[in-house]
Amino acid sequence: MQLGMVGLGRMGAGIVRRIVADGHTAVGYDTNPANAQALADTGIVDTASLPEFVAALATPRVAWVMIPAGITGKVIDELAELMEPGDIIIDGGNSRYHEDIKRAEALRPKGIHYVDIGTSGGVFGEKRGFCLMVGGEAEQVKHLEPLLESIAPGVDAAPRTPGRTGEPSPAERGYLHCGPAGAGHFVKMVHNGIEYGAMAAYAEGMNILHKANFGASHAGEFSAEETPLEHPEYYQYDIDVADVTEVWRRGSVVASWLLDLTAAALHADPNLDSFGGRVSDSGEGRWTLDAAIDLAVPTPVLASSLFSRFSSRGEAVYADKVLSAMRKAFGGHHELPQK
Amino acid sequence: MQLGMVGLGRMGAGIVRRIVADGHTAVGYDTNPANAQALADTGIVDTASLPEFVAALATPRVAWVMIPAGITGKVIDELAELMEPGDIIIDGGNSRYHEDIKRAEALRPKGIHYVDIGTSGGVFGEKRGFCLMVGGEAEQVKHLEPLLESIAPGVDAAPRTPGRTGEPSPAERGYLHCGPAGAGHFVKMVHNGIEYGAMAAYAEGMNILHKANFGASHAGEFSAEETPLEHPEYYQYDIDVADVTEVWRRGSVVASWLLDLTAAALHADPNLDSFGGRVSDSGEGRWTLDAAIDLAVPTPVLASSLFSRFSSRGEAVYADKVLSAMRKAFGGHHELPQK
Amino acid sequence: MQLGMVGLGRMGAGIVRRIVADGHTAVGYDTNPANAQALADTGIVDTASLPEFVAALATPRVAWVMIPAGITGKVIDELAELMEPGDIIIDGGNSRYHEDIKRAEALRPKGIHYVDIGTSGGVFGEKRGFCLMVGGEAEQVKHLEPLLESIAPGVDAAPRTPGRTGEPSPAERGYLHCGPAGAGHFVKMVHNGIEYGAMAAYAEGMNILHKANFGASHAGEFSAEETPLEHPEYYQYDIDVADVTEVWRRGSVVASWLLDLTAAALHADPNLDSFGGRVSDSGEGRWTLDAAIDLAVPTPVLASSLFSRFSSRGEAVYADKVLSAMRKAFGGHHELPQK
Amino acid sequence: MQLGMVGLGRMGAGIVRRIVADGHTAVGYDTNPANAQALADTGIVDTASLPEFVAALATPRVAWVMIPAGITGKVIDELAELMEPGDIIIDGGNSRYHEDIKRAEALRPKGIHYVDIGTSGGVFGEKRGFCLMVGGEAEQVKHLEPLLESIAPGVDAAPRTPGRTGEPSPAERGYLHCGPAGAGHFVKMVHNGIEYGAMAAYAEGMNILHKANFGASHAGEFSAEETPLEHPEYYQYDIDVADVTEVWRRGSVVASWLLDLTAAALHADPNLDSFGGRVSDSGEGRWTLDAAIDLAVPTPVLASSLFSRFSSRGEAVYADKVLSAMRKAFGGHHELPQK
Repeated sequence: MQLGMVGLGRMGAGIVRRIVADGHTAVGYDTNPANAQALADTGIVDTASLPEFVAALATPRVAWVMIPAGITGKVIDELAELMEPGDIIIDGGNSRYHEDIKRAEALRPKGIHYVDIGTSGGVFGEKRGFCLMVGGEAEQVKHLEPLLESIAPGVDAAPRTPGRTGEPSPAERGYLHCGPAGAGHFVKMVHNGIEYGAMAAYAEGMNILHKANFGASHAGEFSAEETPLEHPEYYQYDIDVADVTEVWRRGSVVASWLLDLTAAALHADPNLDSFGGRVSDSGEGRWTLDAAIDLAVPTPVLASSLFSRFSSRGEAVYADKVLSAMRKAFGGHHELPQK
Repeated sequence: MQLGMVGLGRMGAGIVRRIVADGHTAVGYDTNPANAQALADTGIVDTASLPEFVAALATPRVAWVMIPAGITGKVIDELAELMEPGDIIIDGGNSRYHEDIKRAEALRPKGIHYVDIGTSGGVFGEKRGFCLMVGGEAEQVKHLEPLLESIAPGVDAAPRTPGRTGEPSPAERGYLHCGPAGAGHFVKMVHNGIEYGAMAAYAEGMNILHKANFGASHAGEFSAEETPLEHPEYYQYDIDVADVTEVWRRGSVVASWLLDLTAAALHADPNLDSFGGRVSDSGEGRWTLDAAIDLAVPTPVLASSLFSRFSSRGEAVYADKVLSAMRKAFGGHHELPQK
Repeated sequence: MQLGMVGLGRMGAGIVRRIVADGHTAVGYDTNPANAQALADTGIVDTASLPEFVAALATPRVAWVMIPAGITGKVIDELAELMEPGDIIIDGGNSRYHEDIKRAEALRPKGIHYVDIGTSGGVFGEKRGFCLMVGGEAEQVKHLEPLLESIAPGVDAAPRTPGRTGEPSPAERGYLHCGPAGAGHFVKMVHNGIEYGAMAAYAEGMNILHKANFGASHAGEFSAEETPLEHPEYYQYDIDVADVTEVWRRGSVVASWLLDLTAAALHADPNLDSFGGRVSDSGEGRWTLDAAIDLAVPTPVLASSLFSRFSSRGEAVYADKVLSAMRKAFGGHHELPQK
Repeated sequence: MQLGMVGLGRMGAGIVRRIVADGHTAVGYDTNPANAQALADTGIVDTASLPEFVAALATPRVAWVMIPAGITGKVIDELAELMEPGDIIIDGGNSRYHEDIKRAEALRPKGIHYVDIGTSGGVFGEKRGFCLMVGGEAEQVKHLEPLLESIAPGVDAAPRTPGRTGEPSPAERGYLHCGPAGAGHFVKMVHNGIEYGAMAAYAEGMNILHKANFGASHAGEFSAEETPLEHPEYYQYDIDVADVTEVWRRGSVVASWLLDLTAAALHADPNLDSFGGRVSDSGEGRWTLDAAIDLAVPTPVLASSLFSRFSSRGEAVYADKVLSAMRKAFGGHHELPQK
């Protein structure tokens, strides 16, 4: 089967390599010619413009757009001008699912089908397979199955869930038709919201381990504004956090892929000196909270993990100054700027 | 009635001035002679040592200890050695209530009574009156009432609560016998826990107001790692936060003494430039959470407000680096240290 | 000066009474005739339809709409059809500020001015005065000042902030022009967000006081799945929560109007038996969080307070069942439905 | 090598089976004889009392205590009376690490060594291997290595971390000497704190998926006290949550053992009808927070996850009633008890 890919960066390239390895063929377009050249060994048909790209595709065309969310809408509009009824446009990037709903509706009168695919896997996806969360019409998702099969990790990527027997379901093979337009990005959005929360759970716990020797290192040096340790004898542990993440990888309840990655990162950089501690957030975590608030779903953990990222970037400073101003006013404590 | 005061700093001095103004008399001791001299106009009997202090008190003695929590235990032990059955020791400082329970038990065999008084009011207490939360035996608390009456703000400090009629209760006059030893500091501890939460509520809200012009000031300058504003047109407000706190003081649901103080602080320093944003915490907020955890009481707001103070002092940095390490591992994002 | 009021419910009626008491005059319209009749003593001109209402107003007309947010837009549209260039429409209800921005823009070509007024004060507003947060054009807000003066509490409602001298500013008198269209509802929205957080701070702290006798009441009765109290001796306080809220009203750092109300509520119903514990939220708290998320402002306290309301209404149950399912899977604990 | 096991329940039995399978021998004692009988095929030496148990062990004795935390201290005291200098007592249960520090100190004068082993693995441990976090003296931990090797999962239980080469370290084989007495239980405690947070992250996200059809199912039925959905069209997804957890198991960032278990639980009981939604907590999560508070480590995610469990058991109801009482007081909303 043939797949057209707009955007041949890391993710797009990884997908092309996976389908070609399974016997499919690819047509590609990228504004940076080097990206297509790096895929020359896959036999990809390289094109120099969107019209050329569309012309190179057999009908019904399948055009997967894998580019930054900010320009996805514009490229889809251009594709839609060039394509014909029965063709399929896939947004595999990080669009907000609201956009999917609007786009599917806008394309419907033209007879062009829209499929949104939330794609998880990151830099490991090419080798490990991509987890695919798919939104769109059933018929088109069915039509795409041969490609989804090749891109997803496949059933052997994890032990089968007890009770799941017989022919493995698509979910077991690594892709899932979640619902109509937007459902794929909706599920991917929630996936990322969970990701933020789980990441923060590890990070907070590891911070406790990191500071577990405070009773030994700081005894007797508390300023008037600090709360002294009541029991310094309880905090005399010089813990090797890298080793702890390693031991938890086998047999513990918190074993996970995120933990595997963390153990690797700590082995490579035990003090994490190569990081500055300012943590970005990329939309999905925020949108997850927006959805939770709309739906009245309590999400204190997901919210806390997002707010911690905001704070890591200095966004709490004004609020902290307000607290200091109050403390000075009622208690006479003056928390000055640092030199 | 006579009150002995150990510790003539701001709080101790304020209490002495309030009782003397009401016709009571005071005996004082402070390691810094200047503190007693500053009270010379009150007629306070100044003493040069704890034995001299105890000797100057009429029996049954009333010794109020108003010194930093770290040295309170030692001074109480010394006092207890010098005092007689029937005497009363008051801890009006910020001891943890666990200590009260232990001290009351230790003093009981000697016939010395122990009373803990959580004292709120800060630098305004001398003028405004101190809110007194009292723990101890009923008979001794009764005995102290004339002093408590003078120290507390009195019923006129606030409009009477609808339905409370007749002779105002002690609670309405500003002091409350909360229960046996420790109950005063327990209630004061929870008071401070609430204080942290309420302070944070204002500070977080004001931070939103402070940033409400972000759509005008930042449009078009987002990096690849930032989430762009979907609707910059919604954030075009250049709000005078000082004026907002002022207007809320009259008629609004969030009117409070903390808001009064905040309005004054913002009027004096509209940009809060004199503050550094590192916010201390002083024990009570932590102990409140310890109690909540022991009792299985959900306190997400109180906890969040404490953790925000920890974060303001850089205590989240290691956790944030862990997050960055994970993000680099799965997504290739490298959040570097800043130059 | 003349004020037209659409909606003569509790809030609208309170505003009418305040302006009439100051010598202004009112024209009113309400779908329920009884509401206007109840205001007969104010000399209000009662009208039977929107056209009649508009016809009864002197130009430039001032029409204040004080009705549920869900129907405000429709009524404003109808008014706009009937009004003339130079007239002013005020939305004093609880619209989301996004609506204000859109409405002001839609009315501009007609020459009709739009002013949004966030109004705080609740059932006490008529007597206490309403706190007014105003958005709109400077000229129109200036024009409305005589009315705002009468509706707001006035400078005497609170002691003046130290440093604020001379002629009291509008903010000191209880109304503030916060910025262009939407600014009034924006500031009111954040006000309510803070309100949620402050309310939760009190409620959580009071829950600790409420349970402070757990060591006495529950000792020795822990099931295998419960964490026993390590120190039951620390939780032997039978605290009168109503009295605690009363004593905090005078001299303490947490004194506030909310605390005044809480003390009254607890005096009237000490066990709060007349309440079910399901707490509504009414939009502003959610919108405050949406704004915080858009602006990357950390608001863990405001978020927690909203999520606690969601949970109070059973919205966490599915998540809790997921936790139980996990616990059964890895630990063999089966948390069954209750009979 | 020989291991003595006190407590032959699920965990103790699993450990015995793992060491015997590796050629070690076991001596056992359990107050319930059926537990030892069930292990008859392992060749375990069954004893009828602690003295008999101790007598059956070769010196230096190794006695692993695997019983509920509440009775562990008493049994260790009894063992210590019977044992000799050079013997080793292991607490493999869920004691708080404070106890370990005290016990190690108490046993030191007798020459008896104390080792604490935090043991994770639950009902799957026998087959999967147990993750072992060990505290104690280096020499004794070294001595125990042959047993730890057999109990832990071994290096093949997970792919090796990139960069870890050569002879696998103990951490890679599934056991880690974390530090002196208490360090094992300290690390296990933090492990469980993280577990709570990660579990909650999944549960909250899944609750959003569960409610994603709210726009279709609830449109038009909002009461005056409810916030209507502004965009019901965004919430029209009837998502199969079991399938989502299944698809995330392969290739996604949130793949984990907890997710594997969740997918199995949802496959077996898609609506989770067999669970009541009241979630227990078992000490470690609380102690983790106590440590975080002592150390001033911000842990909003871990705290939120614990508080959600408290709330699931009705512990927020009093606070919720306080909120309702406030809302009635200032806004006239009366949230009644349900029939």
